[in-house]
Amino acid sequence: MGMKTLGRHLVVEMYGCRSDLLGDLSLARKSLNEAVEACKATFMGEHYTMFPGGGVSGVIIIAESHISIHTWPEHGYIAIDIFTCGEHIDPWKAYEVFVKNYSPSRVNVMEIRRGVVEV
Amino acid sequence: MGMKTLGRHLVVEMYGCRSDLLGDLSLARKSLNEAVEACKATFMGEHYTMFPGGGVSGVIIIAESHISIHTWPEHGYIAIDIFTCGEHIDPWKAYEVFVKNYSPSRVNVMEIRRGVVEV
Repeated sequence: MGMKTLGRHLVVEMYGCRSDLLGDLSLARKSLNEAVEACKATFMGEHYTMFPGGGVSGVIIIAESHISIHTWPEHGYIAIDIFTCGEHIDPWKAYEVFVKNYSPSRVNVMEIRRGVVEV
Repeated sequence: MGMKTLGRHLVVEMYGCRSDLLGDLSLARKSLNEAVEACKATFMGEHYTMFPGGGVSGVIIIAESHISIHTWPEHGYIAIDIFTCGEHIDPWKAYEVFVKNYSPSRVNVMEIRRGVVEV
């Protein structure tokens, strides 16, 4: 009996982003949808929220788990999670979309293996 | 100038759960909503999906980020993310709800500090 991993989860921290981009709900929505397309995931549903302080939150549920974004314009900071399962999905393709759209000056990414199970 | 952390993120792996519980969409919805209440977060929106294989996915966007669940009944495995910001929210209170509702035989939790910024 062997082991396999069901999913991969990129925990992405982006710093030094332009504040005006981080308050832009349509950019967040565009980025999430582009990210889903880039990694060839399957869109299932989405939800977005804008906050009084100017930050935005968004998540897309994909057939392969989820991709989410939360922004803090006052800190130039974005928290992104790219959680995908399945062997044909490359979460790093989704990651590249956010780098392109937000041009962070500093990034920290942790890749976590989710669901280590017996097969 | 000091540093502070904007959010706390619990990456939760639950193994050895009963398959019938993992295919129960209403239990997933109830658990997410109870979790939001338990940690005194503010509900902003939710989305759920049920898969042909029997798994369920759900996410609640909270004012303090998000809580999500993805289940794999065939492996008795659940992936839960509890990402909260703000000093008055304790993500571990939300965690306890999932343990109570799914009775995993084995759990692995990683707590990640999100958004380390200058203040």
